[in-house]
Amino acid sequence: MARWQPDAPGRLAAAALELFEERGYENTTVIEIAERAGLTKSTFFRHFPDKREVLFGGGALSDLLAEGIASAPPTAGPLDAVTGALDALGRTFFSADRREFSRRRQAVLDANTELREREALKRIGLTASMVEALGLRGVPDRTARVAAKLGALVWEIAYDQWIEADNEEDFGSLARQALAEVRTIGAVR
Amino acid sequence: MARWQPDAPGRLAAAALELFEERGYENTTVIEIAERAGLTKSTFFRHFPDKREVLFGGGALSDLLAEGIASAPPTAGPLDAVTGALDALGRTFFSADRREFSRRRQAVLDANTELREREALKRIGLTASMVEALGLRGVPDRTARVAAKLGALVWEIAYDQWIEADNEEDFGSLARQALAEVRTIGAVR
Repeated sequence: MARWQPDAPGRLAAAALELFEERGYENTTVIEIAERAGLTKSTFFRHFPDKREVLFGGGALSDLLAEGIASAPPTAGPLDAVTGALDALGRTFFSADRREFSRRRQAVLDANTELREREALKRIGLTASMVEALGLRGVPDRTARVAAKLGALVWEIAYDQWIEADNEEDFGSLARQALAEVRTIGAVR
Repeated sequence: MARWQPDAPGRLAAAALELFEERGYENTTVIEIAERAGLTKSTFFRHFPDKREVLFGGGALSDLLAEGIASAPPTAGPLDAVTGALDALGRTFFSADRREFSRRRQAVLDANTELREREALKRIGLTASMVEALGLRGVPDRTARVAAKLGALVWEIAYDQWIEADNEEDFGSLARQALAEVRTIGAVR
């Protein structure tokens, strides 16, 4: 086996997804995931702290999101900085070639309470990253927290649509539509 | 032991909170919780499916929220129906005499990943209840989902403030302030 393993986290995630689909999350071990990916158990644990984490890609998404917020124009309001970052995610992370994997992944998550709990906690972590990135732009903490939560909501709406079986719109435009919708429904009295 | 046990879930939650504070969540068993509450293990499992659930009160909060949404005036918009329900929760569930318990409970949740994961999942469940209750008012599904998520956001902001050590404002007025804030920050471009 080569010592350098290109995209080990991606290969481990793909192997894990296959195994979870075939025999269920509960009935799959870390050793089996590593073997399917052609890697070792110790490589697995270099990238993920436990089996639950393998479908959540570590901190990559958090980092991309924080970078996107940091690179928004100085004049952008906090919520626009967040949705601009979501738009950038649509060009990098949530690209068209990732959609099928994301759909299958979501079906596995939906079927397992442990994974859904980890997913919920991850979303809270992503919101915290957004708050931090907004803080670095000088947005007051209280405003940053509300904007980040609104951003998380826009994200969730867009993501749910993006992985729908019959949807082919790109993530960025779904996020912009979701933002418009949140603004409209939020404004109704 | 009397056969009729008034407020068994409340007594079990209070006993569990004490024990989790004293010796940690991991080091507490269901039998110990039941004993501390002067109840039996089988009474525990009549009210809660597992140890994790004891601080989450089963479905009481979901039911109150759904009732609050159902009883909003017919002319109320979806988000106002939700925040009206939160206001009602402030008079019933999140009353002043519950605040100290809620503060201690939150400190225990924050210290334990398993409990935080259950909490995150519970919030998703509460959002689903709101969507359902809005659907029964004739709100289209898509609008109901966005309004429920905005309502959950308002709730979360208000709740975080309500359990702050130095805060004495009531839950309903914190929820109204949070709604105003969400509307303002959501509208900024």
